[in-house]
Amino acid sequence: MRKPVLLTPGPTQVPEEVLASASLPIMHHRTPQFEAIFEEAAENLKYIFQTENPVIMLTSSGTGALESSVINLCSPGDKVIAVNGGKFGERWIELCQTYNLDLVEITIPWHRTVKPEEIEKALQENPDAKVVFTTLSETSSGGVTDIEGIAKITRSSSAILVVDAVSGLGVTPLYTDKWGVDVVVSGSQKGFMLPPGLAFITMNEKARKAMETSTLPKYYFDLKKAYKNAEKNTTPWTPAISIIVQLNIALRMMKEEGIEAIYARHHQLSEAIRQGVKALGLTLYNEDTGDCCIAVNIPKGVDGGKFVKLARDKYQVTFAGGQGSLKGNIFRISAMGNVGPNDVILGLAAIERVLADLGYSFEKGKGIAAAIDYLAK
Amino acid sequence: MRKPVLLTPGPTQVPEEVLASASLPIMHHRTPQFEAIFEEAAENLKYIFQTENPVIMLTSSGTGALESSVINLCSPGDKVIAVNGGKFGERWIELCQTYNLDLVEITIPWHRTVKPEEIEKALQENPDAKVVFTTLSETSSGGVTDIEGIAKITRSSSAILVVDAVSGLGVTPLYTDKWGVDVVVSGSQKGFMLPPGLAFITMNEKARKAMETSTLPKYYFDLKKAYKNAEKNTTPWTPAISIIVQLNIALRMMKEEGIEAIYARHHQLSEAIRQGVKALGLTLYNEDTGDCCIAVNIPKGVDGGKFVKLARDKYQVTFAGGQGSLKGNIFRISAMGNVGPNDVILGLAAIERVLADLGYSFEKGKGIAAAIDYLAK
Repeated sequence: MRKPVLLTPGPTQVPEEVLASASLPIMHHRTPQFEAIFEEAAENLKYIFQTENPVIMLTSSGTGALESSVINLCSPGDKVIAVNGGKFGERWIELCQTYNLDLVEITIPWHRTVKPEEIEKALQENPDAKVVFTTLSETSSGGVTDIEGIAKITRSSSAILVVDAVSGLGVTPLYTDKWGVDVVVSGSQKGFMLPPGLAFITMNEKARKAMETSTLPKYYFDLKKAYKNAEKNTTPWTPAISIIVQLNIALRMMKEEGIEAIYARHHQLSEAIRQGVKALGLTLYNEDTGDCCIAVNIPKGVDGGKFVKLARDKYQVTFAGGQGSLKGNIFRISAMGNVGPNDVILGLAAIERVLADLGYSFEKGKGIAAAIDYLAK
Repeated sequence: MRKPVLLTPGPTQVPEEVLASASLPIMHHRTPQFEAIFEEAAENLKYIFQTENPVIMLTSSGTGALESSVINLCSPGDKVIAVNGGKFGERWIELCQTYNLDLVEITIPWHRTVKPEEIEKALQENPDAKVVFTTLSETSSGGVTDIEGIAKITRSSSAILVVDAVSGLGVTPLYTDKWGVDVVVSGSQKGFMLPPGLAFITMNEKARKAMETSTLPKYYFDLKKAYKNAEKNTTPWTPAISIIVQLNIALRMMKEEGIEAIYARHHQLSEAIRQGVKALGLTLYNEDTGDCCIAVNIPKGVDGGKFVKLARDKYQVTFAGGQGSLKGNIFRISAMGNVGPNDVILGLAAIERVLADLGYSFEKGKGIAAAIDYLAK
């Protein structure tokens, strides 16, 4: 009787109400029936994005929406700043290189995130930079960037701040309008508790002005077309109808819980995980660890290559391993989305069981107990 | 007690087994469990595409895959030929213009499809054309193009034949390898009986060679990356996991039915529809009408603007209306995908009921009877 638990930083577990709604007969997208669902979802997306501006839905993975921000804001040769502090920062770099932008790369070691001062310095040295590309939650390393601090700087500059919040939106605070973030990109399979296949992007007026003059070629990801269609509660191309139906259910659940309560829950569960792993003598990889994805160092003497596989195949709990140079050196656990205290307990139980299997010496039950103690407060 | 019937040319009805599979817990895509599903689906896709070459899965609507063919085959300034004979032909034109290709446009009236001789002439006049972009089933008009005849010509030329088979694949014959079609593009929400959100593309060696030298910028739709990942049963970006799980179920069903039986079923049901509407005195819009989407002229005196709405809202049967200049002049009915004889009967019943409501004079029951008679043969 397997009861798998998914504690990866995306895809995240999908609530049963949301799963069930995918079993309803498919509806045609050019009907008032679907348009009503689209309209409600679009409205509730604004709440989760904490913005008054429209949120565009794209049928793609998050990477497609990242690309859409580049090709809709920039023109060939534009100077841009991009932060590279992990796998997803690398993606910004690759995107800017693909489109022959004049790239100023801020390289950050993976074990921390970029500081507002570093953005400030780059902007002082490059006052003609048109866009600053950043990452809210760097899933590969577990770091959460100080977007509020960065937005304070970009707000008083001519540069547009683009935040990859594929991981982190609806998880950790991101007050788009209040902080003055110009562009926020996200995806369906993390905080939104949905299957992957939908991505989102919102832009403020500053960004939409830049969009008007951008000359990079685009068609499927042409946001001008998407904005025009969104006004009529539709999309230029056939959207992922079944996932939008699911999105609408998930957004109702999120709205009912309330955005502050969502942030608080993620903080509480993430802190319980941190207390649990620390009680086992483990250490965190990232000095800017946040509440999206917790990267834990594999202790000395433990075979990191076996860790994730054992947890998944023997104990039915799926974590993520390390990527790139971190392969075998960390494992990543996340309480993003549809995760509750019982999932955290099972996560820590699996960690303890695997550590025991791999010959790590620790006091059994101590990790679970620390998490439960914290949750009891 | 509404029992809606969807007879639009996409999205098409999803079988209950396939709908139900979307309710299973989401699985992580970087696991042997998901890779096994991916591998089986990729293998069975080849069967439906009638090719020995790999079929790439993209998380996007069909239009994304169309764009992927343009940006992965071409370089700026390349001469290409594109056929514009409807809404989806227009899409090729727009794509080629977006990427500043040297476009030779073959404009065809919407009520027929392009003839092989017209492609032959264009290729003779433009022997340096690198690609010929065509459409198998032009959903906007109901025409099905003679791809076999066109492939006979392109096969002996240096030009690459790209077929938009978003509509038509797994519905009407398209023998990719046997006919020598170089590139075939499709989408999930028509013949594959799935929700929209996945698209597919296959290329033969001739096309893949062109891909090696293409310099148009691409990232999300970079097929070289996709091919490299597909070898390891994965995708460069998080795929639409739940739709791939559904795809695997749908493909098993299609394989069990057999591709020839699938073609025969679509022909039989489409012919029953044609017999039915003709018995009511209606006429078909397209002289090259095929078995994908049947465009029927709205008879004189009948308010075409009301036709689709009435059928859907009063009689629970969804057809598609006309697009562009055909708005109000035709309605479109399709037996694509998960459609059986009872759906056709309900479709004809709805047509009769709406025609009666809109004051068209005909012998009631005659359309249904003609379809049933044909099906009895």
